[in-house]
Amino acid sequence: MKKENKESNWKKILHDIIYEADTKQGKWFDIILILTILASIIFVMLESVESFDNKYHKFLNAAEWVITILFTIEYFTRIITIKRPSSYIFSFYGIVDLLATIPKYLSLIFGGTHALVALRALRLLRVFRILKLARYLGASKSLIKALKASRIKIAVFLFSVLVLTIILGTVMYLIEGPSNGFTSIPLSMYWAIVTLTTVGYGDIAPHTPFGQFIASIVMILGYGIIAVPTGIVTSEITKTELQHHNNTQHCSNCNEDKHAKGAKFCHKCGEELNYE
Amino acid sequence: MKKENKESNWKKILHDIIYEADTKQGKWFDIILILTILASIIFVMLESVESFDNKYHKFLNAAEWVITILFTIEYFTRIITIKRPSSYIFSFYGIVDLLATIPKYLSLIFGGTHALVALRALRLLRVFRILKLARYLGASKSLIKALKASRIKIAVFLFSVLVLTIILGTVMYLIEGPSNGFTSIPLSMYWAIVTLTTVGYGDIAPHTPFGQFIASIVMILGYGIIAVPTGIVTSEITKTELQHHNNTQHCSNCNEDKHAKGAKFCHKCGEELNYE
Amino acid sequence: MKKENKESNWKKILHDIIYEADTKQGKWFDIILILTILASIIFVMLESVESFDNKYHKFLNAAEWVITILFTIEYFTRIITIKRPSSYIFSFYGIVDLLATIPKYLSLIFGGTHALVALRALRLLRVFRILKLARYLGASKSLIKALKASRIKIAVFLFSVLVLTIILGTVMYLIEGPSNGFTSIPLSMYWAIVTLTTVGYGDIAPHTPFGQFIASIVMILGYGIIAVPTGIVTSEITKTELQHHNNTQHCSNCNEDKHAKGAKFCHKCGEELNYE
Amino acid sequence: MKKENKESNWKKILHDIIYEADTKQGKWFDIILILTILASIIFVMLESVESFDNKYHKFLNAAEWVITILFTIEYFTRIITIKRPSSYIFSFYGIVDLLATIPKYLSLIFGGTHALVALRALRLLRVFRILKLARYLGASKSLIKALKASRIKIAVFLFSVLVLTIILGTVMYLIEGPSNGFTSIPLSMYWAIVTLTTVGYGDIAPHTPFGQFIASIVMILGYGIIAVPTGIVTSEITKTELQHHNNTQHCSNCNEDKHAKGAKFCHKCGEELNYE
Repeated sequence: MKKENKESNWKKILHDIIYEADTKQGKWFDIILILTILASIIFVMLESVESFDNKYHKFLNAAEWVITILFTIEYFTRIITIKRPSSYIFSFYGIVDLLATIPKYLSLIFGGTHALVALRALRLLRVFRILKLARYLGASKSLIKALKASRIKIAVFLFSVLVLTIILGTVMYLIEGPSNGFTSIPLSMYWAIVTLTTVGYGDIAPHTPFGQFIASIVMILGYGIIAVPTGIVTSEITKTELQHHNNTQHCSNCNEDKHAKGAKFCHKCGEELNYE
Repeated sequence: MKKENKESNWKKILHDIIYEADTKQGKWFDIILILTILASIIFVMLESVESFDNKYHKFLNAAEWVITILFTIEYFTRIITIKRPSSYIFSFYGIVDLLATIPKYLSLIFGGTHALVALRALRLLRVFRILKLARYLGASKSLIKALKASRIKIAVFLFSVLVLTIILGTVMYLIEGPSNGFTSIPLSMYWAIVTLTTVGYGDIAPHTPFGQFIASIVMILGYGIIAVPTGIVTSEITKTELQHHNNTQHCSNCNEDKHAKGAKFCHKCGEELNYE
Repeated sequence: MKKENKESNWKKILHDIIYEADTKQGKWFDIILILTILASIIFVMLESVESFDNKYHKFLNAAEWVITILFTIEYFTRIITIKRPSSYIFSFYGIVDLLATIPKYLSLIFGGTHALVALRALRLLRVFRILKLARYLGASKSLIKALKASRIKIAVFLFSVLVLTIILGTVMYLIEGPSNGFTSIPLSMYWAIVTLTTVGYGDIAPHTPFGQFIASIVMILGYGIIAVPTGIVTSEITKTELQHHNNTQHCSNCNEDKHAKGAKFCHKCGEELNYE
Repeated sequence: MKKENKESNWKKILHDIIYEADTKQGKWFDIILILTILASIIFVMLESVESFDNKYHKFLNAAEWVITILFTIEYFTRIITIKRPSSYIFSFYGIVDLLATIPKYLSLIFGGTHALVALRALRLLRVFRILKLARYLGASKSLIKALKASRIKIAVFLFSVLVLTIILGTVMYLIEGPSNGFTSIPLSMYWAIVTLTTVGYGDIAPHTPFGQFIASIVMILGYGIIAVPTGIVTSEITKTELQHHNNTQHCSNCNEDKHAKGAKFCHKCGEELNYE
C-alpha cells in the first residue's frame, strides 16, 4: 500500500509539472516545452532549405529524432499521469500532440517529414494555455465572441462573394480568352479572387482594353467590398467592448446600472454601491 | 368537376413542393435543385478546362443537356403550377431561370456555352430564398440597409475617385510616356485604379524616378482613400445595429417603438411607457 | 435707354441660363455642358491611343478645336454676363475653365495636348455644383468635415510613415543591395511604400532570405498601419453622424436633450416638445 | 567670479537657443536644425544613386563632412550647456544624435555611410518636439493610447497569424513544391505573408490548380483577417474619443472627473455634482 501511495505520489508530482504552470518546476517544464516545439519546427523548416539540408542533413535528422522521442515520452507521460487518459487523448491538444509525433515514425516507411511542421505549429497554440494569463484569454475570447456574433453576416457576405467570383470569372474568360492567360473559367475565378481581395500577383492580368475596363470596375468593387467585413467586425467589437464595460454594478436603491468603471456611489441617487 | 379538382389538387401539391420549403418533399426538392445548379455550373466550368474537355467532352456535353432539360421541365412546371404565371415569369428569379436555360439551346446554332455559368451562378442566390432562415435574411437586410443608407456618400466618393483617376492617369502618361509601358491615357488610368485600390499587378509600373515619386504619393493617397468607404460602411452598420437594439419598448397608446434608451414617456403621444 | 435695358435683359437671360440650374433652359445648358466636357476628355484620351490616333487623327483634331472654341465662347460669355467678372475669373472654377481651354491654343506653338485631360477632369467637379442637390452636398460636406476633424491625426500618421519609410528603405538597401534590384536608397524607399501600402507591384522584390524576413515584418507592420487611418476616419464619421442626430430638441420642463428623432413629447417627464 | 557669471550666462543663452523653442533665436535654430537634418539625409540618399554619385561624389562627400562636423559641434554644445549632461546623453534623442554622427567617422576606417540615413531619419522625430504643438502631441498621444490599449489583442492576433503562416506555408510547400517556385518552407511562409497581407508581389505564385484553390481560400481568409486589426484599432479610437468627451464634470469634493453621462452624484465619494 505504501508503494502504491508512493507511485500515486510520483504520478501527482509529474502531473503537476506537466499539466500545471503554477509551480516553479511546472513553469520551467512549459518554457522548455515551447522552446523544444519551436526548435522542432525550425529544424524541419531548415531541412526543406536544400542548400542547408545538403550540409547538415545528418545533424538535422538526428535532432528531429531526438525531439520526436522526447515528444513520444511526453505524450505517454501525459497519458500515464492523468486520471482519465481519454480526457487528454481525445482533446484538441491530445490529438494535435499525437499527430505532431507520428509522421516522423511514418517517414521511416514513406519518407518526407515536412507535413510535421504544419502539425507542430498547432502545438504552438499551447502557448496561450501555458501563459494562463487571463488577459490574453480575455482578449482572444473577446475577438472570438465578436467573430462569432458576426458569423451569419460573414456567411452571407462570403456566399455573395462566391457568386460574384463565378460571374466575374466567366465574364473575364469570355472577354480575355485563353490567348491572354485566362485559359479556363476556374483560372479566371482565381484571377477574380486575386483581384477582389486586392492581392494582385500579376501572373494573370487583362490585356484587352475592354478586359482592363471590366477589371477596373472589379477593383473598385473590391475596394467597396473590403469595407463590408471590416465594418461588420468593427461594429461587433465596438458593441462587445461597450457591453463589457456596462452592466457590472446595480444600485440597490434605484437599480441604475450604467455606472462608470470603479464607481463607489450611484451617480443617480448617491447610494453606496456594493462591489461585485 | 371531380377531375378538375384532382388536377388543381395535383397542381397544388407540385406548387408546394417547388415553391415552399416547409414540407419534407419541398425540402428535398430544394436540396436537389441547389445540388443540380452547382453540378451544372461545375460541368460548364470543367468544359472550359482544355485538358479536361479533350478527355470527357462527350460526357460533359451529355450531362449539360440532361441538366438543361431538367431545368426546362422545372421552368415550365413553375409556370403551370403557379396561379398567376406572370408573377413568376417577370420576377427576378423567373428571368434568371429562363436566361440560365436558353443559352444551351442557342449553342446548337452559335456554339459556346460558357456564358451559361455566369447566368447559372445567379440561380445560386436562390439558396437564400430556400433556406428561408429569418436570421440570414435579417443579416443580409441589415447589410443592404447599411449600404443603401450610405449610397449617396458612396456615389460622391466614387465620382471623386473617377476625377482623381483621370487626373492621375494623365499626369503619369505625361511623366512616364509610352516607352515605359504607359502607352495611352486610358491605360494610365487603368494603372491608376490598379494602384489606388492597392491591387498592384505590376504589369505596368513606373520606371522613371519622378514617376515613382508620384506613384508613391498615389499609393499613400490610396491608403487614406481606402479608409473612406470603410468608415462610411462601418458607421452605417454601427448605427443600424444601435437602432436595432433600441426597439424594446412599445407605447400601449400609439404603438410607437423607437424610444430612446431609458425613456419613461412615449415621445410621440406623451403616454407613460411600461418597463419591460 | 431702351437699348440699354434690352442689353441688360439679354445679359440677364444668358446669366440665368449659364449660372443657374432652376429654369428649363438652364438645366439643358448644364447637361449639354457636362456632356461636352466628357466628350472633350474622351477625345483627348483617344488621341493618346496610337492605333486610334493613326486612323482618326484629323477627326479628333477637328473635334477638339470645335470643343475648344465652344469652351472659349462659354468662358467669355461667363465673364460678360456676370456683374463682377473678377468674382468668376479668380474663382476655383474660373481658373480651371481658363486652364482647360488655353493648352489647345498653346499646342499650335509647342505641340502636345494631353495635359488638357487632367485640367478638363477638374471641370467635371462642376457636376456637384450643377446637380445642386442638397443631399450630395451634405454627404460630401460630412465626408470633408470628418476628414478635416482628423487632419492633425492624419498629419502625425503620415509623418511617422515617412520616417518609417526612410528607415526601412535604407535597411533594405543595405541588406539586398543593387545586385537584387535595390539600386539606391530612394528606390528602396519606393519599394517600402509599395509594400507598406500593400500595393506590391513585384517589380522590385527581396531575393535574400534575410531581406524576405525583414520584408515579412514590414508587411505585417503595414497590415497594422492600414488600420490606423481607417480607425481615425471611421471614428470621426461615426462621431459626426451621432452628433448630427442629437442635440436638436430641449425639453422646456426638465431640459432633457437626448430625444429620439421626431419626438413630440419629452421621454423623461412627458412635457410637450417645441419643434425647431 | 564675474567671469564665471559671464560663462554661466553664455551657457544659459546657448541652452535657451538649443533646448527651447520660445525665443526668436530658439525658433531659428530649430528650423535650421531640421533643414540640416533633411539636407544630410538627402545627401546620403543621393550618394546611393550611382549615376549621381559618379558625377558629384566630391561635393557630396564634402557636404556630408561639413554636416557631420556641424552635428558634432551641436552634440558637444548640447552636453556642455545642460546642467546634468547625463540626462541628455542617455535620453532617446541623445543616443540618436550620437549614433547619427559617429558612422561618418567610422567610414574613414570601414567605408560605407548609408547606415547614416536610417539613424538620421530618427532625428527627424525631433520635429514633434520642436513644433511643441499641444494638438500634435495630443493627436499622437491619442493614437499611441489607442494602440497601447489594444496591444494584448494585437499580440494574440499576431501570434495567431504566425501559427497560420507556418501551417499555410507548409501546406503550400507540400502542394506546389520546389518546381513551382516554393523552394523551401521559409520561402512558402514568406509567400503566405505576402498573400495574407494582400501585398501580392507575384514573384512567387501558385501554378497548380489545387495550389491556386488553396491560395484563393488564403486570400479570402486574409480579407477577413485584415478586418480584425482594423476593428480593434477603430473600436479603441472610438472608445478613447468617447471617454474624452465625458470628462465635463468635476466633483467639488474629490475632483474625480470621469463621471458617466447624466450623473448627478459623484461615483467616488457620493458628493452631489454641479451641472455645467
